[in-house]
Amino acid sequence: MPNYFKITAKDLESLTSRARASLINKLSGFKSPVLLGTCDQKGQNNLSIISSVFHIGSHPPLLGLVLRPPSTNFSHTYDNIIKTQQFTISHVHEGIIKQAHRCSAKFPRDISEFDAVNLTPLISKSDAWKAPAVLESKIRIGLMLNSKIDLPNKCILIIGEVKWIESDEVSFEKAQINFDSNDISVLGLYDYYKSHRLFKLSYEHYDDTRSL
Amino acid sequence: MPNYFKITAKDLESLTSRARASLINKLSGFKSPVLLGTCDQKGQNNLSIISSVFHIGSHPPLLGLVLRPPSTNFSHTYDNIIKTQQFTISHVHEGIIKQAHRCSAKFPRDISEFDAVNLTPLISKSDAWKAPAVLESKIRIGLMLNSKIDLPNKCILIIGEVKWIESDEVSFEKAQINFDSNDISVLGLYDYYKSHRLFKLSYEHYDDTRSL
Repeated sequence: MPNYFKITAKDLESLTSRARASLINKLSGFKSPVLLGTCDQKGQNNLSIISSVFHIGSHPPLLGLVLRPPSTNFSHTYDNIIKTQQFTISHVHEGIIKQAHRCSAKFPRDISEFDAVNLTPLISKSDAWKAPAVLESKIRIGLMLNSKIDLPNKCILIIGEVKWIESDEVSFEKAQINFDSNDISVLGLYDYYKSHRLFKLSYEHYDDTRSL
Repeated sequence: MPNYFKITAKDLESLTSRARASLINKLSGFKSPVLLGTCDQKGQNNLSIISSVFHIGSHPPLLGLVLRPPSTNFSHTYDNIIKTQQFTISHVHEGIIKQAHRCSAKFPRDISEFDAVNLTPLISKSDAWKAPAVLESKIRIGLMLNSKIDLPNKCILIIGEVKWIESDEVSFEKAQINFDSNDISVLGLYDYYKSHRLFKLSYEHYDDTRSL
């Protein structure tokens, strides 16, 4: 039995708020950072960076993400999603990490993060779609609000239904997305990584005659 | 404006169930695969692989994860969490990917995936902690059920509160977890990647005099 270091609930409680947040934010491991694009009813654009997007189901195609408690003065993303029912997810690639990360600053409501960090809002020509995506991103997804769920710590789970997927690259093959040029992940809030493909495994059947 | 390929909701509807699931499962990007360890009230161990763990909050320390609808005959993990209120998350490193992936097969209830894939259940000596973790993992987390939330597609969001964190390596420094030897992520259900650190960015303040 190897030695191991153990942190208990009591140890966690004794940490400073910042140290605890830094540690706990890493526990879920590597995530793809994405930019969440919204607008208000007057067309003021907003862009925020998150890494909590997760798969809920494929039929209907549902993604979930967590937003901070909406009671603060900086709940622009939440307010916009509730009012317009729309949002976009634009994946972050290596060329736009620093601009994307800068979107985590608390910009005033009347400042568009697109302008502040020099990214280009891509707005559909369709009258029905108002939420901006990020032109410089290689994978963009448009979602309609499906539901919002209050979480025990006052954060909000937003569930969106995928309405469209687009990519600047020829990166769909047999309805498959290619992430080869979109190979970035983040651990916690600040540590960025690049991913290299190892291998593809297959669907696993139970077979009681098989051994590993 | 570069060319891009667009898939609409109607296109998604026209895909086979398998192609749609494969595509939609990749939309949330890279995730850390983890093993979810549980046991029933008789001490029968269960281990399943998931990649939907996400951060909810750090005080209290809460993680979320999504389980399939519990109405099937293979909802052993869900049944065990509800009955025992405990579960563990063991991170997957490169040395145990294939064993971990094999846990996705639908093993009968009376077969422990630990035995079937040759991983070792690590069970606390404390009477209060019964859920097994994976000895071969380098980062293990023990959680108590905080709440369960029904999702619109009948899947279940399980929220757990972190009770302990342990690591086989000297990988905690100032309460920081080191993922250097735990650098695996998965895209969708089958594609495994290895992560290499790029850089660490810092907390972003809003400063209207700063330009990028």
